[in-house]
Formats: sequence, structure tokens, C-alpha cells
Amino acid sequence: MLIGKVVGTVVATQKDEKLANLRFMVVRQVTVDGKDTGNYVIAVDAVGSGVGEIVLYATGSSARQTVLTDKRPCDAVIMAIVDTWEVDGEVRYQKE
Amino acid sequence: MLIGKVVGTVVATQKDEKLANLRFMVVRQVTVDGKDTGNYVIAVDAVGSGVGEIVLYATGSSARQTVLTDKRPCDAVIMAIVDTWEVDGEVRYQKE
Amino acid sequence: MLIGKVVGTVVATQKDEKLANLRFMVVRQVTVDGKDTGNYVIAVDAVGSGVGEIVLYATGSSARQTVLTDKRPCDAVIMAIVDTWEVDGEVRYQKE
Amino acid sequence: MLIGKVVGTVVATQKDEKLANLRFMVVRQVTVDGKDTGNYVIAVDAVGSGVGEIVLYATGSSARQTVLTDKRPCDAVIMAIVDTWEVDGEVRYQKE
Amino acid sequence: MLIGKVVGTVVATQKDEKLANLRFMVVRQVTVDGKDTGNYVIAVDAVGSGVGEIVLYATGSSARQTVLTDKRPCDAVIMAIVDTWEVDGEVRYQKE
Repeated sequence: MLIGKVVGTVVATQKDEKLANLRFMVVRQVTVDGKDTGNYVIAVDAVGSGVGEIVLYATGSSARQTVLTDKRPCDAVIMAIVDTWEVDGEVRYQKE
Repeated sequence: MLIGKVVGTVVATQKDEKLANLRFMVVRQVTVDGKDTGNYVIAVDAVGSGVGEIVLYATGSSARQTVLTDKRPCDAVIMAIVDTWEVDGEVRYQKE
Repeated sequence: MLIGKVVGTVVATQKDEKLANLRFMVVRQVTVDGKDTGNYVIAVDAVGSGVGEIVLYATGSSARQTVLTDKRPCDAVIMAIVDTWEVDGEVRYQKE
Repeated sequence: MLIGKVVGTVVATQKDEKLANLRFMVVRQVTVDGKDTGNYVIAVDAVGSGVGEIVLYATGSSARQTVLTDKRPCDAVIMAIVDTWEVDGEVRYQKE
Repeated sequence: MLIGKVVGTVVATQKDEKLANLRFMVVRQVTVDGKDTGNYVIAVDAVGSGVGEIVLYATGSSARQTVLTDKRPCDAVIMAIVDTWEVDGEVRYQKE
């Protein structure tokens, strides 16, 4: 999994039928120091996340292992909202 | 998923039999600011997209989860046509 | 999928038994402008391709979806020989 | 698999139900010379590893092949704690 | 698949039970010109390879398709020992 920040949303009405009722979020990958990387992914939200939140996202076939995304053509999913992480004994992020 | 722009097509008559009747599109990845990246992929069209359109595409095993691509040797699929997306509260793209 | 040029072959007699009778080709990835990238992959040939030909290849689990490669430890397959492709309305490659 | 060093932990209470009771570790990839690369991944711990340990981690669908991670939306798993490795006939790492 | 050179071994006694009796090899990726790239992977040996040999390795779910690695949390496997390869009509490598 990678750590990301939800920064936006994508709307697409014309899509594969298996994608009905899924929310597509724009997620920027962040480093373990909390800095933005240049990388982004469009991920399906499986946990009720919102813009501005720090999340974990999984990619590849693992993105289809949530109840919501099972057997859907989805290769990235937000599967957790991060409360806190620490590295080298220091808290690097704490949800407000 | 990633955001891409359909910029062309590939024709291949000599191919694995499971690939019959699939349309191969040249898709350039774009950034969330709508700029071209140097990356491209050849993706199967599962949603009736055309050259010039902004789309979402999935890669890997998830590319075989549309009805059209099930069990085919296809590792990238266009599974949605984008209407609009916004980042940091601003609309970055709006389909005309 | 990506576009590649078949530039060579690999011979390996000592291999997993499931790999018997497969042909391993050296494939260089090319850009949509037809230029060589620095990337290569060793792919199984599923369509009777030969050195010098421009092909499409799929990677990952999708590489096991041809009849030839089903359930084999193969992560890249040549699944089509390209006749032509066009980008931005211009033909970029035409098979001779 | 890649070699990594466990450098931290991530806590996430709001997550997909299939992720209950899994420990998320921050793992930095190291080179075969034992140097940190800039890359990190958040991996599920399947072997009782702790911060500071050198481990092997697997990614993609293989990350779901441990008993602990079976059918869960997890794309990286720590599946071994490294005792030692050697390269070019020299021991590069020895667990204390 | 990619071409690699087996340069070392990894020993790990504390590991997922499914990994018992597998040999972990340090494999450096080489270019088609036989030069070392900076990339390495830890791969399971499925063909009796040894340090110094030039091999083919597969990654991702395909790494679980050998009899040895079936359903194990392994994302890279050595599935062939290379005898020779040629590129652009020239032999680039010949096993001694």
C-alpha cells in the first residue's frame, strides 16, 4: 500500500456497467515525510473518505478485494483512512 | 486508474484469437493538470470512446474485468469516459 | 499493452517444465513515434512473430490468457503483430 | 521480493472490514549493499517483524498468499525476516 | 521476463510457513547487452540455478505458476537458465 492524500474527484457517466455507484477520487501519493510526490492515481473509495484526508490505497488485483470493488475493472482502491503514522520513532502525521 | 487522452488507434489482423473484435486505442497518460506525460499505453476500448476523448483506464488483471475483456490477453482497458474532474476545489477539466 | 520491436531470441534448455515448446523473444519497447526506448522484455511468442516485426505485447497475469501461455510461469506475451497505427491523425507506422 | 527495513507503523481505525487485525508497517526498500533507497511501501506484517528489522516483502497478488492476508485488499506483505545475505561471495548483512 | 545474473543468496529462517524449503537468490537485472542495471530482485529458484548463472525470471502472479511456487507468497521466480541469446543477429551471450 502507499500513503496518499485525497485531493479531488472524477465524474464519469459513460462507463463500464460494473462501475456503477463507485466514487472515483484523485489521490496524490505522499512520502513518509508527508510531502507530495509527483505521482497520482484515480482510486475507488471503499471507506467513505473525503477530499483532504490522508489514506492508504492498494493497487493491482488487490484493489478488487473489498466488498465494494469485487470483480470490477478497478485497479486502485482507498481501503483505509490513516489516523497516524510514525517513522524512526517520531510521529510524522496525526489526524486532527 | 489513470487519466488518459485517446490519441490514436492500432490495427493488428494477426493476433491471438481471443482478441477478435477488440479495438486498440493509443492512450497518452495526462497529469491531473491535464498535461501530457511522456507515457502511453495501448488499451482496449470498453466504452465506445473515440480519438480526442479524455478517459479513465485500468491496467493489469483489472483490465480483464469488463464484459468485453473477460479472460482475454489484455492488460489495459478504457473503462470510463471522463465528464469532469476537480482538484483542490478547482475544476481542471470539463467535457465540452 | 505496449508496442515493441522483436529484435532477438533467447534459448534456454534448462527450465520449468511448463515452459516446454515456448519461444522466447527479445522485444524492445518503442514509443508511439516508433523510436526505441531503453526498455526491453523477454516475451513468449503467441502469434508466430519473427525478428524485425512490430508487435503488441501484454504483461503480468494477462500474459497467461493466450491458449499457448495458460497457467505457465510467463509474464509477457506477444499477442498481436501490428499492421499500422496512427496518432493525431497521422499514420506513424505501416507494415511493409 | 525486495529487501526492506521496517522503520515505522501506520494506524488506521476506519478501514475496509477485511483489514481488521492486520498490522501495517512502514518499510523502506534497501539495496543489496544495505543502503536506503528512496522507496517505501506500507506492508502488512505476516511474520511478527518489528521496527528496525531487515525483511523480505512481496507485492501484488502474491501479497495475498499468506494465511493472514488471504483475500484481503492488501498489496504488500512482509513474509520473511532476513538472517543474512551475501552477494559476490561476501556477506552483506548479518542479523545480530 | 527479464534477464538476470544470480549474484547471491538470502537466508531467512523466520518466514511464512508456505515458504519452507524455497531458495532465495539475489538476481541483478542485466541489459540485452549483458551489462548490469542497478536493479535487483530476490527470486525463488525453480530450476536449480547457482551463483554466477544467467537466468530468466518472471515476476508478479506468474511467479506462482511453477510447481514449486504454486500458491506461495512469492512474486519473483527464476524459471529458466539461459544458454544463449542474440540481438540484431549477433550472439550477445553464450553459456560456457
